[in-house]
Amino acid sequence: MSNLLTEVLSPQELEQALRKIGAERYHNRHPFHHLLHSGALSLGQVQAWALNRYCYQAAIPRKDAALISRTTDRNLRREWVHRILDHDGWNGEEGGIDRWLVLTESLGLKSDYVISQRGALPATVFAVEAYVDFVARHPPVITVASCLTELFAPDIHRERISGMLENYPFINESVLVYFRRRLGQAPRDAEFALDYVKHHARTLAEQQGVLNALVFKCNVLWAQLDALYAAYVSPGHIPPGAFDPEQPPC
Amino acid sequence: MSNLLTEVLSPQELEQALRKIGAERYHNRHPFHHLLHSGALSLGQVQAWALNRYCYQAAIPRKDAALISRTTDRNLRREWVHRILDHDGWNGEEGGIDRWLVLTESLGLKSDYVISQRGALPATVFAVEAYVDFVARHPPVITVASCLTELFAPDIHRERISGMLENYPFINESVLVYFRRRLGQAPRDAEFALDYVKHHARTLAEQQGVLNALVFKCNVLWAQLDALYAAYVSPGHIPPGAFDPEQPPC
Repeated sequence: MSNLLTEVLSPQELEQALRKIGAERYHNRHPFHHLLHSGALSLGQVQAWALNRYCYQAAIPRKDAALISRTTDRNLRREWVHRILDHDGWNGEEGGIDRWLVLTESLGLKSDYVISQRGALPATVFAVEAYVDFVARHPPVITVASCLTELFAPDIHRERISGMLENYPFINESVLVYFRRRLGQAPRDAEFALDYVKHHARTLAEQQGVLNALVFKCNVLWAQLDALYAAYVSPGHIPPGAFDPEQPPC
Repeated sequence: MSNLLTEVLSPQELEQALRKIGAERYHNRHPFHHLLHSGALSLGQVQAWALNRYCYQAAIPRKDAALISRTTDRNLRREWVHRILDHDGWNGEEGGIDRWLVLTESLGLKSDYVISQRGALPATVFAVEAYVDFVARHPPVITVASCLTELFAPDIHRERISGMLENYPFINESVLVYFRRRLGQAPRDAEFALDYVKHHARTLAEQQGVLNALVFKCNVLWAQLDALYAAYVSPGHIPPGAFDPEQPPC
């Protein structure tokens, strides 16, 4: 839950409040990310990150479809549907999900195993499905706001590309095509979403809902890294059935 | 609710059972449709039909997005998303909703009024939203089956084009572009959906659910015509606030 608003914000103030949430809560501040980017993780730990993050990637089109299913604003639907096309692929072109599987394959994980999500941490799946469910249950202005973590994504993608290329022998430029592509897509998406939220969240209740939605979404991302850290860094308690780098899936 | 199944059907038997439901329950059998096609309606009654039917058209992309939001089958999502593009319009091209507004405009209804749904019958809106809600709450095999009224649509569209052209001076070829376009789209959509249902509904419970879903969808269409008949034909009780041909909206 975000700080309680006591008065309606101007669109500019609302943007500042949203950016402040990102500065405080976006998952680039999580210790797992520092380990990931600095080269401090083993191959097994990077594999665990990539296969868990796949669950999030795979859920994105369902989340975006849930948003479209909730809005009678045809302009919003026509803008938003390109996210489904980008991520699922369209017209014979591969999508973001395929590009993520390039990464997991290159890390030595079979796509069947990754797609099955058998090795994912339960906490990952809970967080991801909580996000899809949140979007299915809230009106568009709130759910558009929940996507605004994209505002903060380009920095982390740039950091990830350079950090991972530099620090891991098993990472090369071709496997990071997902992040390269998102460097182009995310700012366009984020700009539209920010503009939509600034224009449509005008009452105190709507603005509070928008800020809470972004906090919620930051929590969805943060919780995934908490779970990874606990399972694969410290204390290192891998839940039953989850991916174990010491006992790779056959 | 469909007749109770007592044993699992083969895919061919399932198709026959689905087609039997259409033969008994599709809205081409409704008295309002006979009046519409035979030229027995006044301009005001045709206006009432077109503006109420707009509510259904406008809800279709939300229904299709709800289906996509419920499925983890990426192939199904990639096939289904073209319905949203067809209907909402995509890449600068107009969609089915625009083509419906060509019809309502040509009947003398302002698009702002039609889009506002202010003049729609409450029973229309309830039926349409029941459909969107049904799709949001059921798994893909059931919701795909609910779209199978498309199997029966080409005949009614052909009948509508020829009957309305022949029988109403206020209808010309250019305003029926919606139905012409659907003659091409519906069979492709229906073929995919029928194939999907035949391959995925394998248990008694799934097959019963599929048959019930098609009955439900036929009811959604039928209820809309019942409401039109009651309000604008007999007994002619127009609910408060609904479109009144005697007192056209300003």
